[in-house]
Amino acid sequence: MVLLCKKIADSKWFQNFIIVVILLAGVLVGIQTYGEKVAHWTTIIDKLDWIILIIFTVEVLIKITAEGSQPQNYFKDPWNLFDFFIVVACYIGPFLGDNAEFLPVLRLIRILRVFKLITALSELQLIVGALLRSIPSMAYISLLLGMLFYIYGAMAVFLFGENDPIHFENLQRSILSLFRVITLEDWTDIMYINMYGCDSYGYDGNEALCVNPKSSPILASMFFVSFVLIGTMVVLNLFIGVIVNGMDETKTEIEMKAKVKRKNEENGTNLENEMKLLIDKVDSIKEELGVLTHLYDEEKSNSSLKENAKYYSNGES
Amino acid sequence: MVLLCKKIADSKWFQNFIIVVILLAGVLVGIQTYGEKVAHWTTIIDKLDWIILIIFTVEVLIKITAEGSQPQNYFKDPWNLFDFFIVVACYIGPFLGDNAEFLPVLRLIRILRVFKLITALSELQLIVGALLRSIPSMAYISLLLGMLFYIYGAMAVFLFGENDPIHFENLQRSILSLFRVITLEDWTDIMYINMYGCDSYGYDGNEALCVNPKSSPILASMFFVSFVLIGTMVVLNLFIGVIVNGMDETKTEIEMKAKVKRKNEENGTNLENEMKLLIDKVDSIKEELGVLTHLYDEEKSNSSLKENAKYYSNGES
Amino acid sequence: MVLLCKKIADSKWFQNFIIVVILLAGVLVGIQTYGEKVAHWTTIIDKLDWIILIIFTVEVLIKITAEGSQPQNYFKDPWNLFDFFIVVACYIGPFLGDNAEFLPVLRLIRILRVFKLITALSELQLIVGALLRSIPSMAYISLLLGMLFYIYGAMAVFLFGENDPIHFENLQRSILSLFRVITLEDWTDIMYINMYGCDSYGYDGNEALCVNPKSSPILASMFFVSFVLIGTMVVLNLFIGVIVNGMDETKTEIEMKAKVKRKNEENGTNLENEMKLLIDKVDSIKEELGVLTHLYDEEKSNSSLKENAKYYSNGES
Amino acid sequence: MVLLCKKIADSKWFQNFIIVVILLAGVLVGIQTYGEKVAHWTTIIDKLDWIILIIFTVEVLIKITAEGSQPQNYFKDPWNLFDFFIVVACYIGPFLGDNAEFLPVLRLIRILRVFKLITALSELQLIVGALLRSIPSMAYISLLLGMLFYIYGAMAVFLFGENDPIHFENLQRSILSLFRVITLEDWTDIMYINMYGCDSYGYDGNEALCVNPKSSPILASMFFVSFVLIGTMVVLNLFIGVIVNGMDETKTEIEMKAKVKRKNEENGTNLENEMKLLIDKVDSIKEELGVLTHLYDEEKSNSSLKENAKYYSNGES
Repeated sequence: MVLLCKKIADSKWFQNFIIVVILLAGVLVGIQTYGEKVAHWTTIIDKLDWIILIIFTVEVLIKITAEGSQPQNYFKDPWNLFDFFIVVACYIGPFLGDNAEFLPVLRLIRILRVFKLITALSELQLIVGALLRSIPSMAYISLLLGMLFYIYGAMAVFLFGENDPIHFENLQRSILSLFRVITLEDWTDIMYINMYGCDSYGYDGNEALCVNPKSSPILASMFFVSFVLIGTMVVLNLFIGVIVNGMDETKTEIEMKAKVKRKNEENGTNLENEMKLLIDKVDSIKEELGVLTHLYDEEKSNSSLKENAKYYSNGES
Repeated sequence: MVLLCKKIADSKWFQNFIIVVILLAGVLVGIQTYGEKVAHWTTIIDKLDWIILIIFTVEVLIKITAEGSQPQNYFKDPWNLFDFFIVVACYIGPFLGDNAEFLPVLRLIRILRVFKLITALSELQLIVGALLRSIPSMAYISLLLGMLFYIYGAMAVFLFGENDPIHFENLQRSILSLFRVITLEDWTDIMYINMYGCDSYGYDGNEALCVNPKSSPILASMFFVSFVLIGTMVVLNLFIGVIVNGMDETKTEIEMKAKVKRKNEENGTNLENEMKLLIDKVDSIKEELGVLTHLYDEEKSNSSLKENAKYYSNGES
Repeated sequence: MVLLCKKIADSKWFQNFIIVVILLAGVLVGIQTYGEKVAHWTTIIDKLDWIILIIFTVEVLIKITAEGSQPQNYFKDPWNLFDFFIVVACYIGPFLGDNAEFLPVLRLIRILRVFKLITALSELQLIVGALLRSIPSMAYISLLLGMLFYIYGAMAVFLFGENDPIHFENLQRSILSLFRVITLEDWTDIMYINMYGCDSYGYDGNEALCVNPKSSPILASMFFVSFVLIGTMVVLNLFIGVIVNGMDETKTEIEMKAKVKRKNEENGTNLENEMKLLIDKVDSIKEELGVLTHLYDEEKSNSSLKENAKYYSNGES
Repeated sequence: MVLLCKKIADSKWFQNFIIVVILLAGVLVGIQTYGEKVAHWTTIIDKLDWIILIIFTVEVLIKITAEGSQPQNYFKDPWNLFDFFIVVACYIGPFLGDNAEFLPVLRLIRILRVFKLITALSELQLIVGALLRSIPSMAYISLLLGMLFYIYGAMAVFLFGENDPIHFENLQRSILSLFRVITLEDWTDIMYINMYGCDSYGYDGNEALCVNPKSSPILASMFFVSFVLIGTMVVLNLFIGVIVNGMDETKTEIEMKAKVKRKNEENGTNLENEMKLLIDKVDSIKEELGVLTHLYDEEKSNSSLKENAKYYSNGES
């Protein structure tokens, strides 16, 4: 039984079949977006939905069984956990009854099934994994960005909250407006409102909200220009950092694999392999030289420190 | 006959002549955009159009003849196929008669003739080739982006379709609106409509379409902010990936060629000479390392001498 | 006393405690943005504010005492200076009395306390330091950008000042408008106003300001298109330059440190060992090259053998 | 005389003096932008303008004289030519009289004097030179971009010219609108006008211009989305290419200089120099190995070609 499940789970046709079923689930979701126009197909769609759910359940069961006497291994892979959660969540649906309140949640779960494609295609898993893994390495820049938003957001509430309640009434709205500013989306409108006052710019149709008009031309222009400059720079830093990191990692990984492969094939030498091996070796020499230089610099600064220390201790004595 | 055609097809003046004719075809298309203002020139333009078509036909024939007994070789180059298709398509035109329905198609074909410039200039061929070749390597990120659009698109229809039919009535319109959001083009307008409800934002002049106003401030802001963050990141990843990939490849190739050429001019490189050169260089590195070791030993003994000297001088005081 | 202070200042729990206090100060600022809604908490907030200020004062005192007989060392670190300035500025507050005029300044200082997080987290200090250090290296590109803004700004006042006083009345407003153009924010609106004249575009509701309408279609389009092209290019150059510079430096440093650490753990590296390792590696490369030469000679004779074989077999047929 | 001029032209204080004068000229231009508010200073400004012009003239004369018997050498440097042109152009002014028609030209020339700062600061000269030199290397991508604009522009006139004369009446206006689309500035407005027809979107206040409303939802969305995708990709390619090229060049140049310097100092060996020298040598070995691999690949493909050729020729015989 375990062996059979393992064989099925690893077989190419089973994996392809699951991909097809996921695509079908995606198409079903797409059809349902057309609402009343496809109302007379509802029964068929519902049935297909049930069949898809059963297939996904069977898939989970097969994969758990394939683990043999250690079914908990299945749950060690976060992607499997994601699969499992989706399937379980779909079963909760019917228990909620026809309560319209939960309809959006049920739909959301059904839509999320499309994300199972990431689990089914190992290449997508790699890319998403790389993106996710690069996030912690950028944690501190994100923190810096968060501080920038928080500080500028609080300042904006104090400075512009009375003049421009639509954008800066409270902290969360202020931060949302600043996010808009950082995407450069109509940021000058917000700036002009606070430069010229809400009575002379931007509150057409919302005059009732403009209770305390106040114009602060210099302050507002400096506030927003500085935020755009600093903000876009930090954001660019963050984005480019994540991407460059990800690309670097992928590249190093690929190169590493090639190197290992070459080493393994070393016995079956031929000219090409030999040349690549040589290049690898020269690379390693270059690395070594870098380490050497670094070590020497360190030693030198150490010895000069020691000399200084000696000098001081001598001076004191 | 075959040799003559080959000679013509490879000759510089023939290639330049074709480039001039393509540019002329481009200018003709440009003149035709001025419509009625250039109506009295129509006969001349039509005649020139025919002449250009004949020249392009002759070009195709010469190139096919130049292949000799294997004319099918001509069709192996995708750019030749493109040339051939353009010429054939232009001949279909008159058969359609004066049917105004097909006019846009005919015009499109005549405009596409300007793309023949890519075929005529080998450098453009290289660039476009590099761009096209880098597409498959980015297939999985595109797939990821597609999934993101599909899932967010379907969710947007369910969540905002009733409140904002202009942007989220059905799936295709929803995906178009999300594409707009990802280009950051007035994305906050779409967000505000769904945050405050269509009755209080953005449906001025379209009040009739706002049948089921619904405001969902938290949901809408989270939906769009998360989409902007994830979407721009994936898109940036995709674009930069494609570009960096393409540029790297092209650059390394060009540099290598230049180096080999230079070497050849210097001393008629061949493999054997190159290897001997390498061995010499490695030898010189070994020598260098010897010098380095010697220098380091010397310096070390010097510094210990100095320390000793200091020690003694301190001792004296 | 000095030793005790040093121990406290360097201890992990003290640093974490300060971070918590900074976060608390941040939360307090956040609460205060809700104005009248949190009016009944004012006394508590004020008391907490005082406690935080006292803690920060104690922190500064501990750190200064920790320097021992050379308290001026504390002020050598710019981040310490920043800390000190914030604390002193907070004490100035009460002396100003209840003068509403200074309220924004006092609030600003209290908000700036959140920036103490940079001082408290050494990683943030590193990132901000890298960003700041990369600025001088880009000084000349900034100067170039400044010249571009100044020259285009002055030209815009002369050319469009009369037609479009809202955007180009004087130099400072003109430069602000050009900054808007460079962020691509509704730049075409500004262009259209000056292409078609203020009487036919963009001055709806501000007709009184449109005194000298003047349309200059070619001039305006060339002016703004050229500014967008040149400006975005220089800005991109500036931004990418700053980021790439900063990242490269930080990365190389971190990598080198990691390598040396690894080596140290492996076999207690020192300079001499490293050099011997290098010499061994170079030797192995030389060996490799010998193998390569041998292989190549072999392959060559093989291929010539094969050619000969073919030749003979052909001769036989 | 020649020697004196040379000495003056090369002296630090003369160069600094010229920089100060250029800055003064810049300030004067800035003051003049305030128009009537500074009308009572006009006489002083005019006098200062004359003094500046005389100083610039003297500078040109000194530099020409400094070239000695070969004054034409002065004109070989394009930056000198630029200086010369600016000075000569300023003298033409008075000959034109008080003709108000030429006023903008005269002002433009006076503003352009600020660009002399590039000539005066050699660092700026370097940066601008790098930017300018990188343009030809990107000529073919620019050509591709030009073709894209031309073809899409002509197509847009044919497809949308009747529905949307404001943006697509003729070729030049169409290309300007497409430039706007590529900067992503309100590009969806243009798309919606042509998707829904000018009678239902975007022609409020310009109803008179909407003569032939025509809605083409699928065509317009495909046209603009494809243009945004292809266009931004090519533009990004162009921009990033220019920047990366420029940075690479600058880096290589700096490294080259360092290498040459190290070589020159070779006699005065010390450990650090020696190590850097080693790294240079290892680099050169890596380069060599690249060439080797390339050569081998070439030879191999050649020999297989030859074998094929032999095979065919044998087959034919």
